[in-house]
Amino acid sequence: LDADDRAALNAALDDLHAADIADILEQAGPEDRRRFVALWGDDFDGEVLVELDERVRDEVTGLLANDVLVDAVKELDTDDQVYLVEDLDPPERDAVLSQLDAADRIALEQSLDYEEETAGRLMQRSVVTAPLHWTVGEVIDFMRASTDLPDDFYEVIIIDPAVHPIGTVALGRIMSHPRATPLSEIMNEDFRTLRVTDEQEDVAYAFNQYNLVSAPVVDGEGRLVGVITIDDAMEVLEDEAEEDMKLLAGIGDETLSDRVLSIAKARFPWLAVNMVNAIIAALVISQFEDNIQAIVALAVLMPIVASMGGNAGTQTLTVAVRALATRDLTSANASRIFMRETAVGLINGAGFAIIAGVVSFVWFGNPLLSVVLGVAMIVNMLVAGMFGILVPLVIEKAGADPALASGTFVTTVTDVVGFFSFLGLAGIVLL
Amino acid sequence: LDADDRAALNAALDDLHAADIADILEQAGPEDRRRFVALWGDDFDGEVLVELDERVRDEVTGLLANDVLVDAVKELDTDDQVYLVEDLDPPERDAVLSQLDAADRIALEQSLDYEEETAGRLMQRSVVTAPLHWTVGEVIDFMRASTDLPDDFYEVIIIDPAVHPIGTVALGRIMSHPRATPLSEIMNEDFRTLRVTDEQEDVAYAFNQYNLVSAPVVDGEGRLVGVITIDDAMEVLEDEAEEDMKLLAGIGDETLSDRVLSIAKARFPWLAVNMVNAIIAALVISQFEDNIQAIVALAVLMPIVASMGGNAGTQTLTVAVRALATRDLTSANASRIFMRETAVGLINGAGFAIIAGVVSFVWFGNPLLSVVLGVAMIVNMLVAGMFGILVPLVIEKAGADPALASGTFVTTVTDVVGFFSFLGLAGIVLL
Repeated sequence: LDADDRAALNAALDDLHAADIADILEQAGPEDRRRFVALWGDDFDGEVLVELDERVRDEVTGLLANDVLVDAVKELDTDDQVYLVEDLDPPERDAVLSQLDAADRIALEQSLDYEEETAGRLMQRSVVTAPLHWTVGEVIDFMRASTDLPDDFYEVIIIDPAVHPIGTVALGRIMSHPRATPLSEIMNEDFRTLRVTDEQEDVAYAFNQYNLVSAPVVDGEGRLVGVITIDDAMEVLEDEAEEDMKLLAGIGDETLSDRVLSIAKARFPWLAVNMVNAIIAALVISQFEDNIQAIVALAVLMPIVASMGGNAGTQTLTVAVRALATRDLTSANASRIFMRETAVGLINGAGFAIIAGVVSFVWFGNPLLSVVLGVAMIVNMLVAGMFGILVPLVIEKAGADPALASGTFVTTVTDVVGFFSFLGLAGIVLL
Repeated sequence: LDADDRAALNAALDDLHAADIADILEQAGPEDRRRFVALWGDDFDGEVLVELDERVRDEVTGLLANDVLVDAVKELDTDDQVYLVEDLDPPERDAVLSQLDAADRIALEQSLDYEEETAGRLMQRSVVTAPLHWTVGEVIDFMRASTDLPDDFYEVIIIDPAVHPIGTVALGRIMSHPRATPLSEIMNEDFRTLRVTDEQEDVAYAFNQYNLVSAPVVDGEGRLVGVITIDDAMEVLEDEAEEDMKLLAGIGDETLSDRVLSIAKARFPWLAVNMVNAIIAALVISQFEDNIQAIVALAVLMPIVASMGGNAGTQTLTVAVRALATRDLTSANASRIFMRETAVGLINGAGFAIIAGVVSFVWFGNPLLSVVLGVAMIVNMLVAGMFGILVPLVIEKAGADPALASGTFVTTVTDVVGFFSFLGLAGIVLL
């Protein structure tokens, strides 16, 4: 790159997968990125754009000449085109759209009309279909005559005259049967269709639950409009798991290549919510200032009760969020799981009550203080188990993502209950 | 089920996917499960076993007669057989193995010789291969003549006489070319092979990074021994993301159908580590008992500093763990990301220092106390950003899973630094 040697760059990049080139671009600094794009120029590969983080992609598309960008988009499969064009700035988007063929443009605009994060956006519009009366030989001849088959497809979808999907035939099955075999004999009628309006997490769930490889997508009238393949579902599945993980930790939609200020800004609201939580906890403590003044050991021990409750609550919460995402936790077993988490909280609460009691007795030599600490521990871990499961269930029922904000909710409860039960009980028993 | 009506049960189950039947079994109580298995009996579908949670599966295989179990296993693809048999109790495993055909048994035993969680365990042993000199027509004829093609395959693997994979041809490409086309003309030479010893997370990474649909697996001598398809990789990918999420929250390998006692036991060690952390924090506080005695407001405000640091640390940590898992965080950009997280910690620390300072001034009316609180907040959030990225990097370098125990590590640091800086500074400035 330093030598400005374009031929050498092209040779080096030839051996690399688009995803690896994208990784290099992401890990480079802005200046290297600019020089890289300037040097690679016209040969820019659309696949690389698809693999880039959103922020770096914005930067790179800004650097590319419009005609290079249009060429890069044209090479792509329709689902990748949608993915790329939906994130472009309006002027660039219009530039790209206006230079596509009329048919491609209209199709792309149609896809963009579907809601974001739905099956309509994920699907590939070019589908290999066949009528029911065809034979294996006719499908093969049709495919040999086609010039624009999609890059990746694993099934032929059988449609009726009204373009409703009525069956699927895996390519392997077609190839392993004689030419004269009618498709109706080898087709799989027990297939799942998705609707264009399905949420992408429902799409990922269907692929995962039923081990699908590809699934036809139909519109409101049940007509075939596209197909989603497992590689798209895999990406969604990973995105959704990552999203839950980040929401639980109080992080929004940031990527590793975002700038310092935008990251600081994105994390600020989550920290602000935590600040409110911490102030509420402080207010609870301030109600018992006299108790602390009288027995300063209370100030030393109180974080233990809050911390153990918070931890136990987070354990239960994470299990619940994950189980809701994989649909293992449903209304059918919610009350059983609630009972179970309550029992787990009670058992571990009792265990740590004994440990904390012994430790504090050795430390401060006050048996009553140890009893107060133990009882507060049991109460708080019991509450942690109950709220750890209730909070995500309630948030899910309300229609929001159960990972969202449930962490702060649960810690607020365990902090308040922890400080209140320990300091309050201490006031009654010890003073 | 209550009517003991076997025909009705069979009819009802006929319409259900194996995964849905498995979900029903998981959500049912043990007694219903027993009656279900007794009633369904001989018709038990091996696919259902594959979809079950490990604990419920153990229960169900215990309920099944050995010959039913053997029949169920025989129906499955070789990768599912391995998955099922590896978890069986030794007596059941031997019973199943002894009743398989000699060839199947030897092959299954070979697969079980590979380490758990490696490509060797994941792969499907039946592979559709073709020599380089074949034409499209010859492959199709070969497939038509074969009786034991695998259920799911998307590519034919081209091998040389020494059984080394030299290329792959997608089924779609084979079908769209005339019979006379030599495979050498349409094969893809730029494919990725996996080794039997590859860790399953590396397998999932390769599929995700390079959008693979299937990949040949080779032994130490580079000979083709199996193939891994995207559906297996998708499961691994989800398992790995789930594992990280659970490790971060301090949960081990538990499933929703585990019993109360085994869950309480599994979570106990993580809580015990947290207890040690909390006791260390309490020890720090006890060093400043005199300060708290003198100014009880310190006890009220100190959890705010610790909590904000813990939260900021968890944010950074989660980003780092995720980025390490997706290999976006590498030695190439580690120092840049470290600088960035430090800067983010400083910026948000300064922001919340001001907020906390104002709140505490309104509350206690002591400007010096507010300054101490603000400075402690900046110090702790700066430290949180630094350790949030350093801890997982060091754990990864040491060869362990960065999600493991890093959460407790980081909170211990932020608790200690938070209490120490706030109470220590207060002692110097205010007393």
